[in-house]
Amino acid sequence: MIVEVINTGTELLLGDILNTNFQYLSQKLNENGFDVLYQTTVGDNEQRLLDVLNIALERADIVITTGGLGPTRGDITADTVAKCLHLPLELHQPSLDKIKDYFGKKDIAMPANNINQAMIPKGAHILKNDVGTAPGMVVKTKNGKLVILLPGPPNEMKHVTTLQMLPYLEKHCKQQAIIHSKVLHLRGMGESTVATKLDDIIINQTNPTIAIYARQGEIIIRITAKSPTLDIAQNLIAEMEKQVRERLNKFIFGVDDETLAKALGRELTRGNYTISFAESCTGGLATSMLTDIPGSSNYLLGSVVSYSNMAKSKLINVKQETLDEYGAVSQQVACQMAEGVRNLFGTTIGVGITGIAGPGGGSDSKPLGLIYISVANEKGTVWEKNNFNGSRSDNKLRSVMAAFSLAIDKLNELK
Amino acid sequence: MIVEVINTGTELLLGDILNTNFQYLSQKLNENGFDVLYQTTVGDNEQRLLDVLNIALERADIVITTGGLGPTRGDITADTVAKCLHLPLELHQPSLDKIKDYFGKKDIAMPANNINQAMIPKGAHILKNDVGTAPGMVVKTKNGKLVILLPGPPNEMKHVTTLQMLPYLEKHCKQQAIIHSKVLHLRGMGESTVATKLDDIIINQTNPTIAIYARQGEIIIRITAKSPTLDIAQNLIAEMEKQVRERLNKFIFGVDDETLAKALGRELTRGNYTISFAESCTGGLATSMLTDIPGSSNYLLGSVVSYSNMAKSKLINVKQETLDEYGAVSQQVACQMAEGVRNLFGTTIGVGITGIAGPGGGSDSKPLGLIYISVANEKGTVWEKNNFNGSRSDNKLRSVMAAFSLAIDKLNELK
Repeated sequence: MIVEVINTGTELLLGDILNTNFQYLSQKLNENGFDVLYQTTVGDNEQRLLDVLNIALERADIVITTGGLGPTRGDITADTVAKCLHLPLELHQPSLDKIKDYFGKKDIAMPANNINQAMIPKGAHILKNDVGTAPGMVVKTKNGKLVILLPGPPNEMKHVTTLQMLPYLEKHCKQQAIIHSKVLHLRGMGESTVATKLDDIIINQTNPTIAIYARQGEIIIRITAKSPTLDIAQNLIAEMEKQVRERLNKFIFGVDDETLAKALGRELTRGNYTISFAESCTGGLATSMLTDIPGSSNYLLGSVVSYSNMAKSKLINVKQETLDEYGAVSQQVACQMAEGVRNLFGTTIGVGITGIAGPGGGSDSKPLGLIYISVANEKGTVWEKNNFNGSRSDNKLRSVMAAFSLAIDKLNELK
Repeated sequence: MIVEVINTGTELLLGDILNTNFQYLSQKLNENGFDVLYQTTVGDNEQRLLDVLNIALERADIVITTGGLGPTRGDITADTVAKCLHLPLELHQPSLDKIKDYFGKKDIAMPANNINQAMIPKGAHILKNDVGTAPGMVVKTKNGKLVILLPGPPNEMKHVTTLQMLPYLEKHCKQQAIIHSKVLHLRGMGESTVATKLDDIIINQTNPTIAIYARQGEIIIRITAKSPTLDIAQNLIAEMEKQVRERLNKFIFGVDDETLAKALGRELTRGNYTISFAESCTGGLATSMLTDIPGSSNYLLGSVVSYSNMAKSKLINVKQETLDEYGAVSQQVACQMAEGVRNLFGTTIGVGITGIAGPGGGSDSKPLGLIYISVANEKGTVWEKNNFNGSRSDNKLRSVMAAFSLAIDKLNELK
């Protein structure tokens, strides 16, 4: 079935925000066997949205909109879809109750204009939104096409897509072929090295296909198969995965929605281990990323952001002589941070990160992007020197990835 | 003049890559006074691209394509544009020489299929590409519209846009108007409340226009003016800003690329103040976001991620009786965290955050999303209770925003 996605919002046309909603939707729809052949962006303007809807309904079987379901005057999607399909708007009482309840929980009276969010085209099926006030909707056209309205804020769009829209489509739309992917996550190897190792496989790829990406400091390999059934697709992928693993197995740490943080969390859980961080240049990012994982309170006992030398010496016992002799950005200080924080919290391993994230603070001997990482366990302390060359936030992220990777190595020692 | 951008490429429709090209182009075009009213994505398919081009030429004065100018079979843009405009393709010798030269410099013989990149619709004006092999082009239609073809790789697209396309447009298209925007950032008020306060202004808006968005836990108001000169636009915006500030001034903390973290950093710098955080459910995110700002080492002395009760009592002196009587998620513990971390690092203010980010750990009396925030300074300690209802990472982000906001309030006390 042919899908067109219409992303509404003047902020998209002004270039204020990047259209991440479309990437998410197109990935999910393709995975579920829908052919996304068109995507259109249009502003918060009734006539233009109406024109775009009419064109989409001519060339697609399913038209999915994002945005324009909020409480303000600029939010015109439900109203315009109703006009396009010649349907009246009517109040959906359960949605209104839900919105009132949402404000009630915050001890706030519902502003009058939020009632608009409960006005839906007559006969629309509601896609419940438990993380915001705007419900999604499915409206059927007279000739059996579907118009699906999703909220614009990415977290709400994702929530409604995964929990409501995809199950609805699976129930109501028959698919001829499905597209299935498996993602392998690698650490300790660069993108072009991975590409070289797989070059002869990639040249001859037809079904499944292989693609290699660098993302958030990790390398991922995506294997994608298209076939009539999930079983066949999974078999095709399994054969290809075998070939890839024959060459790169030791670099692969996880599959699908695995991340390095999750892999570290799993290693910690496996051995009933605990961890603590002493973060300098990463400023708490390592701890924050590890605590993004539900259940991390089982293994993360605590961390210290030792941004100042005072914090380093007072809290985690970095020696003043070491700071004086080698400077705060040094392997010696990184190691004392890892050991100090491990002692402070009494954890299985302690991680220390110190460096110069930039843009200021670099020198000839200690350039921007110089980051020392250290991990201490009962068997001893290791350290690693990195030279990154990205922006401040990029260098922070890469440092965290390198620290997670070294921590996994150090946990494996304890097996 | 009305612009439509057509981004071609099956990889966009599969969701393999994010459409950053459109954001860049729309920003540049808007800055230069062009109205980007439509954007379409279509795959590498001749018939569909032809249909999309025809629709675009009906509703826009300038149609800009990206992608499909490479040497492979999937690269069909120049050919399809020629078909659409009933023009023959012809060899452009200077472009062919340039491509041969490009390969020559790398000591590689030009692959035969690269000759396709020098085949251009008859009469096209060439937009030189010094960073790749695909030249850009401008083709005029019989009724005076422009079709502009840009290469797809972002670095080449940016290069050709800035150095070739924009100067061409400036020379050949008379602009009646430029579009200028100013963004106001608000805290302490929800999107719909802001909308209600500005409702009568928004109803009557023509030029400048006002739009309200929620983004990353902040509310922003964008005022956009269209006028013949920048001066006039700025005056129009200033008048509107005055009206907005008459109603909402105390909620506005910054303009344009300001963020709440930057605003907090500025307040800290202004008074030569220092700050420290005791973070529980936010797991280091507050500290990490503040340290994303270059120069934050001037005011951030350190932080503690007190994920375990042990960390709370050992490091920042939260009393065991308080933990026993009220639990770790309570106003009492939040206040002791703020005071304890302030004492530990000797900072002007200390911030404590404790709560249940989810998805697990909630109960009837302490539901998911219940977050206590506290800020201590020499004059005393304040606290705030929040009930958020997002995902784990969303609740973390909103908690950080609420904490930054309360910290700014508490710094203002010291003025």
